[in-house]
Amino acid sequence: MVAGVIPQTPLLPVPGVLIGVGAAGIKHADRNDLTLFQLAAGTEVAAVFTRNAFCAAPVQLARKHLAAGPVGHLLVNSGNANAGTGPAGLEDAQATCAAVAALAGGEARAVLPFSTGVIGQRLPVDKIRRALPQAVASLSPAGWGDAARAIMTTDTTPKATSRTCAIAGRTVTVTGIAKGAGMIRPDLATLLSFIATDAPVAREFLQTALERAMARSFNCITVDGDTSTNDACVLMATGRAGGASITAGSPEAAAFQDTLNAVCRFLAEAVVRDGEGATKFIRVLVEQGGSVDECRQVAYAVAESPLVKTACYASDANWGRILAAVGRAGVRDLSIDRVDISLNGVAIVTGGGVAPAYTETEGQQAMRATDLEIHITLGRGAARSEVMTCDLSLDYVRINAEYRT
Amino acid sequence: MVAGVIPQTPLLPVPGVLIGVGAAGIKHADRNDLTLFQLAAGTEVAAVFTRNAFCAAPVQLARKHLAAGPVGHLLVNSGNANAGTGPAGLEDAQATCAAVAALAGGEARAVLPFSTGVIGQRLPVDKIRRALPQAVASLSPAGWGDAARAIMTTDTTPKATSRTCAIAGRTVTVTGIAKGAGMIRPDLATLLSFIATDAPVAREFLQTALERAMARSFNCITVDGDTSTNDACVLMATGRAGGASITAGSPEAAAFQDTLNAVCRFLAEAVVRDGEGATKFIRVLVEQGGSVDECRQVAYAVAESPLVKTACYASDANWGRILAAVGRAGVRDLSIDRVDISLNGVAIVTGGGVAPAYTETEGQQAMRATDLEIHITLGRGAARSEVMTCDLSLDYVRINAEYRT
Repeated sequence: MVAGVIPQTPLLPVPGVLIGVGAAGIKHADRNDLTLFQLAAGTEVAAVFTRNAFCAAPVQLARKHLAAGPVGHLLVNSGNANAGTGPAGLEDAQATCAAVAALAGGEARAVLPFSTGVIGQRLPVDKIRRALPQAVASLSPAGWGDAARAIMTTDTTPKATSRTCAIAGRTVTVTGIAKGAGMIRPDLATLLSFIATDAPVAREFLQTALERAMARSFNCITVDGDTSTNDACVLMATGRAGGASITAGSPEAAAFQDTLNAVCRFLAEAVVRDGEGATKFIRVLVEQGGSVDECRQVAYAVAESPLVKTACYASDANWGRILAAVGRAGVRDLSIDRVDISLNGVAIVTGGGVAPAYTETEGQQAMRATDLEIHITLGRGAARSEVMTCDLSLDYVRINAEYRT
Repeated sequence: MVAGVIPQTPLLPVPGVLIGVGAAGIKHADRNDLTLFQLAAGTEVAAVFTRNAFCAAPVQLARKHLAAGPVGHLLVNSGNANAGTGPAGLEDAQATCAAVAALAGGEARAVLPFSTGVIGQRLPVDKIRRALPQAVASLSPAGWGDAARAIMTTDTTPKATSRTCAIAGRTVTVTGIAKGAGMIRPDLATLLSFIATDAPVAREFLQTALERAMARSFNCITVDGDTSTNDACVLMATGRAGGASITAGSPEAAAFQDTLNAVCRFLAEAVVRDGEGATKFIRVLVEQGGSVDECRQVAYAVAESPLVKTACYASDANWGRILAAVGRAGVRDLSIDRVDISLNGVAIVTGGGVAPAYTETEGQQAMRATDLEIHITLGRGAARSEVMTCDLSLDYVRINAEYRT
């Protein structure tokens, strides 16, 4: 089940990036669960990793390899997160990097490993080794769609998109994929996302552009308030479109940033729409705050309230729960009587009480939509913030109670 | 459904306190939903109210009346919270206080009003007025059990207990009731609790003793992370046992505090066991922290993680989710390799990885118990903290999706 529609658009290859997939049988037989990216020499790579103190072995290793020098390959497996596996987990991650190097060329330290799936079980290195030749043999510029499916865990649908823009008279492409449906929260909400462009982008600006794009996409979504041990978002720039490297000061920087923003935004929204058990897509918009931080605080308090989320699931215009969540968000000296709330354009609370013209019928009607916008104004200033989330359904509990059984 | 057993013990009357109930038909016909406490002259009253910025009309009025002078009556209705109802809500609360005064004697400002139930609907004052004579006519020292049932909303069972202790050679009684099953979180987690004693207690120490007892009971529980707009906990001391008033410096202070702690602890645990949809009672104990605050942070991150709670529901020893919640709790410079986790005595994580001797079978067996203790040591210091919660079940979603329908 997906809340609304996640458009499946044609995916454009990114010159300089080859992708292959394989079926290692890590958690399920007969499905691709291994993805290999092969990057042309000279590709710049930027990345943002989870801030969870318990970060998984592959995250630790990918960070180290990225810092050490040029990247030749990315290896991604689904079905096993290789997290909470101690020193043995690090050795396992290292072994898969070595296997890629032995088979596809280059050095093990030029391989970035990524894992997603169940926490706390040893990575089946042998299975991965056995499936690697299949991944290498299938390397192709057209592998994006297969990769979007191979990295899925509890996702019900692949998430992928492409955008193009003109940079100095040349058309450049940005293509990205993402996976993630549970254990999703700010400070890297994506679980895994891989984005590539053939634009020439200087390393420093590539990192800046990625972080900026994430602030308005992956870092403002939440499904269940849980941050993964394995979250990572990688942006690769092969430079194959030619031309001078884009830096923060380039005239082309804005166009590139806009395109990247659009890709990240699409993927982040898709992750929320495919949130575990999601039947509704909910945008919580908080305006007129004294600071962006307090707007975020309120937006998250509402977006993560199990009571608000179950009311949305039931299409119940129980605005009292929204009001209660705003009230407990911890905003200092909040004046109730300045707070307004509307729901898909229907004014439900004005001045901290029921809006005079509001009727339950109108509220119920507004709640029936698949896409809900909860618009809250605090009457304290000019700051704003936005968080995207989904409802809390019976299926959320079913999926998470039965995940390992 | 209740997680485990909530003992139903005989309730002892508290000399100086009369309780009557009535059926106003506020939300349901044919059940008592109105409770009236009548306090003997000279009764000292202490209270703690919700910290939600959107506090309900009765909370605002009860605070004001309590500050103004002696309290003669408490009026409690279930079925309607009179919250988010603006100035009209305040007038409604005032009208019910006036009705009590007119019928039972005393002044309106000597009545403390309490409401619990649906947020955002006008209080049906006429229905309450019509049921008040019934409540007055049934005033009796033996009304505690009826009151425990009349204040229930989504609770499935009444929560009440009595304790006695010897104070200066006299036996004194502490009897308390509580209600609350959803919208429950620290900083006043109870929704509503009323506790009375015939011990003579000075006003200032009464408030201190209440706050101390709550720190170890109502303020360390969570069902869904939502704080109610109506939470209130009231402690009444009639002094009818005789003797000198107990103050902070009295030799009897400790015995009284212990007895009060036991009553509050019993009620808080009962609230969690009857948490909406609860099938498991979960105690999260965090030790060896650098500070109590960081222990609380970790305990709440684990106790409120939907992934941990659904795993508990499924009796799934998915300790990776516990580990991930510890990791994202925001403790600065947390060293993974010093963290140990055990589950009902079974060591599952040692030094940040799977415990060497751990087996899934052992983990599954431990998880099957109704009462779970998740014991986490951080290896950073000597501080500790404890939080009580319940699991997240299909019924939690059902109850909250269908609450108003």
